[in-house]
Amino acid sequence: METDVGAARCRDGKFDLIRAFVGEGEELPSGIVLGPGDDGAVLEGGWVISTDLAVEDVHFRRGWLTDEEIGYRAAAAALSDLAAMAAEPVGVLVSAAVATDGRVDVADVQSGVRAAAASVGARVIGGDLSRSPGPLFLDLVVLGRTERPVSRAGARPGDELWVSGTLGTGAAALRAWDRGEDPLPALRLRFARPVPRVALAGDLAAAGVPRAMVDLSDGLAGDAGHIAAASGAGIVIEETSVPVDPDARAVLGDAEALEAALRGGEDFELCFTAEPGTVEVETLQQRHSVRLTRVGRVTRDGGVLLEDAAGRRRPVDRGGYDHWSET
Amino acid sequence: METDVGAARCRDGKFDLIRAFVGEGEELPSGIVLGPGDDGAVLEGGWVISTDLAVEDVHFRRGWLTDEEIGYRAAAAALSDLAAMAAEPVGVLVSAAVATDGRVDVADVQSGVRAAAASVGARVIGGDLSRSPGPLFLDLVVLGRTERPVSRAGARPGDELWVSGTLGTGAAALRAWDRGEDPLPALRLRFARPVPRVALAGDLAAAGVPRAMVDLSDGLAGDAGHIAAASGAGIVIEETSVPVDPDARAVLGDAEALEAALRGGEDFELCFTAEPGTVEVETLQQRHSVRLTRVGRVTRDGGVLLEDAAGRRRPVDRGGYDHWSET
Repeated sequence: METDVGAARCRDGKFDLIRAFVGEGEELPSGIVLGPGDDGAVLEGGWVISTDLAVEDVHFRRGWLTDEEIGYRAAAAALSDLAAMAAEPVGVLVSAAVATDGRVDVADVQSGVRAAAASVGARVIGGDLSRSPGPLFLDLVVLGRTERPVSRAGARPGDELWVSGTLGTGAAALRAWDRGEDPLPALRLRFARPVPRVALAGDLAAAGVPRAMVDLSDGLAGDAGHIAAASGAGIVIEETSVPVDPDARAVLGDAEALEAALRGGEDFELCFTAEPGTVEVETLQQRHSVRLTRVGRVTRDGGVLLEDAAGRRRPVDRGGYDHWSET
Repeated sequence: METDVGAARCRDGKFDLIRAFVGEGEELPSGIVLGPGDDGAVLEGGWVISTDLAVEDVHFRRGWLTDEEIGYRAAAAALSDLAAMAAEPVGVLVSAAVATDGRVDVADVQSGVRAAAASVGARVIGGDLSRSPGPLFLDLVVLGRTERPVSRAGARPGDELWVSGTLGTGAAALRAWDRGEDPLPALRLRFARPVPRVALAGDLAAAGVPRAMVDLSDGLAGDAGHIAAASGAGIVIEETSVPVDPDARAVLGDAEALEAALRGGEDFELCFTAEPGTVEVETLQQRHSVRLTRVGRVTRDGGVLLEDAAGRRRPVDRGGYDHWSET
């Protein structure tokens, strides 16, 4: 995708811009173990930190969600980045800019943030608050700990590619709202209250299973592409294996629901690679009440390919929902 | 001050609201050494983290500053919170929501953030980027380290109250812009490029001097009030000792410049208490090219009092510039 932003012309939306902010290629400061380009930064002492924006009319509309749900979803989305690193959430800092016209109930937003944090054993430990000249802005900073962070960079050729849960939910809910309808209750609930897969990620990491892991915020194709790029490998996604949300199929139809799973955004499920035979599917599914699906494999060659039932492969547009360049 | 925000009625502007976010009185999560209510949270391992919003038309107007200066000032303001804890800055995460109409040059904002970070030895290590439906929104997360964080809570009766630099600068610059004029060059520069007093704070803390410390973001009266409240003590500010910026006097007149120093905001100087005789004024002033002034003392009784040249005391409105409730 091409975006023109002032003097900065960017080929890959916000990713290039964030890299520019960070100054990729420069040495990491002392005390920073893993820097930009992953779901979070890792500090000495096993701390993981990540930050995630939620902006009115970009990430959500106030007609879709209650103020409590806006806070919940924003915090859950941020906490999902800690799951992606296999970190245990500890603290949340919430910066909020809110119009003072009484349109938004800060106490309700705050309740949602606190509830999402509590759902994974974390607490709000600070933040900042400002007026906003209009839109509601939230920036959620999440802090977690892990002794073995899982990065995006460890995938090896021959690994299997796995995802948790079902995909396409977020895109289907958005579609319903775009049509002026209410999403099916199950879709709406999953949109309003995503489950950060913290416990599943912790179990997987404790068993040394994931070699590379991300959370699905940019669609399976986009996020698999992040693993492939960071690992210097390729990924083949098996089209017929992708666990498309049945409710998303009902709303979007089969073809578009698959597209939503591949290129939609913000399903907040885990996507990881693992050596064949190492994922204890039954045990994990039962313990965490979530489906685990092998959806592809890691290859030697770069890029992400989509393979159909007949074994034909085609390149897949990594796309991904981009809150920077989408309008 | 009284603010009505949705269901939350608040007596003390944003401070009460942030406390409500945090759930004051609850136990701190494991690994968090010092929680909300100070300039930053302290994590095991000596990490200090703080977050600071900069919102267009609330904290700045784009006509006042270049995009580079907007980034610089936002980052310097956040880094000042690390100075207040006597922490050495390490990393900055910057979350930015920016309109994609080309009005704001993200690359310039980014240069400013990076320059401010570099000025105190820190680096940008991550962040998030989003479209904004209008205003420019920045949230700066700063990470530092210290073996001996200085909190707001250690002031003891008999301590002296000290400030670095001169005060009232920010308010004077704002006044000039409000009148449609350009501020004097020196005022403008100090507004656009505040100096986080990191090195001074480090020297002071290494010598064990500050018993309580804040940075001046809410005016001397407001921030001294924070120290008094956190320390369970009182503070007397000696009116004739307050180091009012001479340029601010020129713009505002003597009386209003004093008010600006006491109740204006965002001078980003240090304010600390110390046992009498422990501040090595000459050495520190020369080493850090900044004035140090004893402006008052800590007393047993609560509250902040202003004492005039004749020794008459009067209560001082803690006020402070509040980006939440000011309009």
